[in-house]
Amino acid sequence: MIKVGIIGGSGYTGVELLRLLVGHSEVEVVGFSSREFAGKSVAEVFASMVGQVNLRFCQPDDEVFNTCDCVFFATPHGVAMNTVGGFIERGIKVIDLGADFRITDADEWSKWYEMAHTEPKLLANAVYGLPEIHRAKIKNADLIANPGCYPTAVILGLMPLLKNNLIDHNTIIADCKSGVSGAGRGANQALLFGEVASSFKAYGVAGHRHFPELKQQLEMLAGGQVGLSFVPHLVPMIRGIFATIYVDLIDDNTDVQAVFASAYEDENFVNLLPPSSTPETRNVKASNFCQIAVQKIPNSNKLVILSVIDNLIKGASGQAVQNMNILFNFDENLGLKQIGLLP
Amino acid sequence: MIKVGIIGGSGYTGVELLRLLVGHSEVEVVGFSSREFAGKSVAEVFASMVGQVNLRFCQPDDEVFNTCDCVFFATPHGVAMNTVGGFIERGIKVIDLGADFRITDADEWSKWYEMAHTEPKLLANAVYGLPEIHRAKIKNADLIANPGCYPTAVILGLMPLLKNNLIDHNTIIADCKSGVSGAGRGANQALLFGEVASSFKAYGVAGHRHFPELKQQLEMLAGGQVGLSFVPHLVPMIRGIFATIYVDLIDDNTDVQAVFASAYEDENFVNLLPPSSTPETRNVKASNFCQIAVQKIPNSNKLVILSVIDNLIKGASGQAVQNMNILFNFDENLGLKQIGLLP
Amino acid sequence: MIKVGIIGGSGYTGVELLRLLVGHSEVEVVGFSSREFAGKSVAEVFASMVGQVNLRFCQPDDEVFNTCDCVFFATPHGVAMNTVGGFIERGIKVIDLGADFRITDADEWSKWYEMAHTEPKLLANAVYGLPEIHRAKIKNADLIANPGCYPTAVILGLMPLLKNNLIDHNTIIADCKSGVSGAGRGANQALLFGEVASSFKAYGVAGHRHFPELKQQLEMLAGGQVGLSFVPHLVPMIRGIFATIYVDLIDDNTDVQAVFASAYEDENFVNLLPPSSTPETRNVKASNFCQIAVQKIPNSNKLVILSVIDNLIKGASGQAVQNMNILFNFDENLGLKQIGLLP
Amino acid sequence: MIKVGIIGGSGYTGVELLRLLVGHSEVEVVGFSSREFAGKSVAEVFASMVGQVNLRFCQPDDEVFNTCDCVFFATPHGVAMNTVGGFIERGIKVIDLGADFRITDADEWSKWYEMAHTEPKLLANAVYGLPEIHRAKIKNADLIANPGCYPTAVILGLMPLLKNNLIDHNTIIADCKSGVSGAGRGANQALLFGEVASSFKAYGVAGHRHFPELKQQLEMLAGGQVGLSFVPHLVPMIRGIFATIYVDLIDDNTDVQAVFASAYEDENFVNLLPPSSTPETRNVKASNFCQIAVQKIPNSNKLVILSVIDNLIKGASGQAVQNMNILFNFDENLGLKQIGLLP
Repeated sequence: MIKVGIIGGSGYTGVELLRLLVGHSEVEVVGFSSREFAGKSVAEVFASMVGQVNLRFCQPDDEVFNTCDCVFFATPHGVAMNTVGGFIERGIKVIDLGADFRITDADEWSKWYEMAHTEPKLLANAVYGLPEIHRAKIKNADLIANPGCYPTAVILGLMPLLKNNLIDHNTIIADCKSGVSGAGRGANQALLFGEVASSFKAYGVAGHRHFPELKQQLEMLAGGQVGLSFVPHLVPMIRGIFATIYVDLIDDNTDVQAVFASAYEDENFVNLLPPSSTPETRNVKASNFCQIAVQKIPNSNKLVILSVIDNLIKGASGQAVQNMNILFNFDENLGLKQIGLLP
Repeated sequence: MIKVGIIGGSGYTGVELLRLLVGHSEVEVVGFSSREFAGKSVAEVFASMVGQVNLRFCQPDDEVFNTCDCVFFATPHGVAMNTVGGFIERGIKVIDLGADFRITDADEWSKWYEMAHTEPKLLANAVYGLPEIHRAKIKNADLIANPGCYPTAVILGLMPLLKNNLIDHNTIIADCKSGVSGAGRGANQALLFGEVASSFKAYGVAGHRHFPELKQQLEMLAGGQVGLSFVPHLVPMIRGIFATIYVDLIDDNTDVQAVFASAYEDENFVNLLPPSSTPETRNVKASNFCQIAVQKIPNSNKLVILSVIDNLIKGASGQAVQNMNILFNFDENLGLKQIGLLP
Repeated sequence: MIKVGIIGGSGYTGVELLRLLVGHSEVEVVGFSSREFAGKSVAEVFASMVGQVNLRFCQPDDEVFNTCDCVFFATPHGVAMNTVGGFIERGIKVIDLGADFRITDADEWSKWYEMAHTEPKLLANAVYGLPEIHRAKIKNADLIANPGCYPTAVILGLMPLLKNNLIDHNTIIADCKSGVSGAGRGANQALLFGEVASSFKAYGVAGHRHFPELKQQLEMLAGGQVGLSFVPHLVPMIRGIFATIYVDLIDDNTDVQAVFASAYEDENFVNLLPPSSTPETRNVKASNFCQIAVQKIPNSNKLVILSVIDNLIKGASGQAVQNMNILFNFDENLGLKQIGLLP
Repeated sequence: MIKVGIIGGSGYTGVELLRLLVGHSEVEVVGFSSREFAGKSVAEVFASMVGQVNLRFCQPDDEVFNTCDCVFFATPHGVAMNTVGGFIERGIKVIDLGADFRITDADEWSKWYEMAHTEPKLLANAVYGLPEIHRAKIKNADLIANPGCYPTAVILGLMPLLKNNLIDHNTIIADCKSGVSGAGRGANQALLFGEVASSFKAYGVAGHRHFPELKQQLEMLAGGQVGLSFVPHLVPMIRGIFATIYVDLIDDNTDVQAVFASAYEDENFVNLLPPSSTPETRNVKASNFCQIAVQKIPNSNKLVILSVIDNLIKGASGQAVQNMNILFNFDENLGLKQIGLLP
């Protein structure tokens, strides 16, 4: 049994993390912070917790976090980097669901997030928390940079191809679609029900903050430069990411199904679907699974990879729990066994 | 560890029941039937199960069901009554999620379901499986009639008032709203996305099959005749029931909040919300909870009770699991601890 | 051809009014204001107007409004009352889509809207702009208080019964459901897609601002006090109001269908549906129609009236155009002939 | 004033066509057929028409269609080809909203539609009814093959580039997203609200019937072979198509915005959005407009074209009306002036 704290409890990833950890048999959540709600009971703010969770919101600098074995940051970018250092010095593991430690280059980070990075030294220590790729490093990490939701879906869809050097690196297109919860819970006219329901749109074509993070990981896997077009879109649903990835196979006759089967045969949270399947986001809703299907475009060397996750779970809070399980040598599936909620 | 079977696995309540039972530590699901899908793997039909469930669909008359400790029927009305008897004779407990044993009077049943009842003798044995009201009888039952979704929400909203004789029995209005999954998974033009999305409608004003079941239970609680107006509506969402119940208090000064608090203080799955709350269906989504709030209409003796459930869980499959837990002396919460999925 | 201006163009009723007036053959829109967007082209803010509307937003005190024959206010309550007087003095007709002139008693208004009324003298001049009830007065009005969306649906559903004295005035229950656009376009966490999609809730049980307006009109029709329970709910859809109204008939044998048929036979925008129909909000989406059905609860004197409108059209901007048509002796249907958008 | 008939009135494109034609000042709809509903009033089946449309459904072989100037087929593929010939012989213009005459090669058609083509001779006469490309031919046509919804959005997004030979023809990717109404109104489990709401999926990756039609038109514009990847997806909304099209520019410095501006400057129904815009399907909902934006992927020769339409209007019934207007020398905008319904 370990003690954990969550800093940043008023947003969607914070409350989702709490929900998952409350159901985790080896964890006690002792701190849950929000400047806005400090002092209030969690159940007063999130009525889904009534009768089940007795916590009260505290301040983010509450002493309770120093008693933890692990602290999660579910905060906007630019917050975690200011206090992470202290926890690490005290031997407390840190998992940052925000973006502060995902990009290894501080200048690149500053360019995309439009602020100076206050802890560039820590960037080298941070491990990118995608277990299917970096499990060994995660085990021994002090600081985990939990991946963004889009990168999770896209990297898992490309890893077997890049690792085995099967595709033209210069022609990758990731046409991605996300549910609205990915944009957070802050008051924002553009995210009103009246603005996004019954409609579909693209956004961030000229540059989305998940682009440099995604490109960095793909290039690491490819062992060189990658040409990437990444266009995110907004779907009128709450949860789910659907990535449609187009690549050119070097060899038309590659048995791609076998390549993916082999790459993920030991992974619990990545499900390769049978040939000619098409995934649906609802099949992974409320679960930590990533489902992937691969299909050839007839009469061409184009391959389409279709990858789906729940953006709040495998794309955020569930992956954070998976990382925590690895860090503390728990069964990696602990607290994450839920099957997708269908319908 | 008990062995259970589910007859009727192709619909929403069947697959939801499977999802819940797969996560239940004292249960092994050994049979899951569907005439349509017999022989196929469950994961082929419901991709949410890929990698997690290894069952294949069998025929409803498969021998495996005779090896079970408990058999669930998640079938349309008129199916369970034909085979329930054999299971009971073999000492196998039966929980019927359908409507065959909910109404004690066979003629009344026939009138509403437009077919003869083939097992009128069993009606007397059947226990109406609403644990908050009939827990003691459920413990010793052979055959449980799992309640309808609307009745569950409405009865729980009225029980404390009726039991304590606090309202005028002749003026009960239950204005109910349901998500679309309550209407099942059969191909039906009226339930197409294009027909029900972005719209709201009433239906069944002149008579809905949950009416006689609801009235029967309310009259049992009231100890006499009840005047009930019940109007169901369809909400463009998948899960959730919201009941807005209007009653006239006999005594304007009744401390209704205290009455409900006392009635449900020992119930895990019924949460009374604080005064002046308004429930939201999302707060119980994917959970077995019923959340209730009571509010007075100013300057009147009208009381409004607001009651919400997830129609597929507390209104169907979760309640069935709760009944099974009671039948087999398990912790009543086992397999049902999930907190509402928010957002 | 008349010149009109719209003050308050950044919200849903403003842009809907513009859309309707742009298609009106007797109207030229010469002014469209928004403090936030002044100077920008309308098409830049509302891309649905690209290529079709050449207006630019102006300030609300722009001189152009003084050149109008009619000025519409599509502003939050408390705005119109400050400048309406000047327009009336200049002989310019005013139609206020906000709430400033809907309640005849200034003190009552202040209680509900929590500010002093700055133009109590004008309250007596204002005509409540529900043409099916006040057409004659509208014709000669200077200032029209355009009704709220809930009151429009409910009053039209009760008028024939109240005028003919057919129901018990003390037991009226209006259980109302609204799409989200009724709550406006301001940034508001409670109206985010992530908060209201896939969920259903009640709100304002203890008191909603449409209550006093509704009660006032019902009492005028009833010629005396009315006992009213009004509970609004939020539906996960953009447009539409559905009112389920429960009343007690004085005489069980009243031919209610005939009463409604007679009351609305000459009304273009109120459609009585055939006996045993149930309306759907989608059937009036994007149209100015109100559709009504009446059904008896079996074995009781309860009558249920089901009334649907598009809250932004018959519940706001379309009704404002209808009022303008009456004011200027145009065909009442001009610019409002659109049939509901289905699906 | 011309007389028109609609054969196939029970589906979404049929009722949408009726709605548009009822509002058209130069048209009288004299026949509206449905085998299923023959004899019933249209308003009984589509309550949106109550009080506004007095037609009754007739049989598809009713004599009334022989009295028409123009007959529309809003039927599934394989229906129109059997009776179109007779109308043409009588000098009646035919507009087929189905797929029977979209592909010029009968064998290719048979391969995709899995039946023999019964009127291969007529294929040569048929004009593909995309006015922005084939206006001159449409003027003199007897038989118009109204384009599919996906091809309309994609062809309009590529025409200026192909005509001016600005892109590599071998690397076109059309990642398309459609609302659910495009799949029709037939009872179909896969299109239930419970199956498609709150979820997103791809379908038809290995081959969709709009592929050969799209390829044929693109190759005609390109003057040669085209390499096309086309992946359709289903969005949980009723109306709208969003096409995200990826191409490689031959010359990185092409002023693409100017190319599109010039191509569409005289087109009323194609709106080029300003640089760096991203379209939203809601901006064209309930209108006949296509809105297009073009954006460069930074540091590459990749161009992204974003094109949106309402699949039931510009993608079906509205385009059919536009074609009729051209055929009969009406103002091309007649009956199609409606601005997008926002929100």
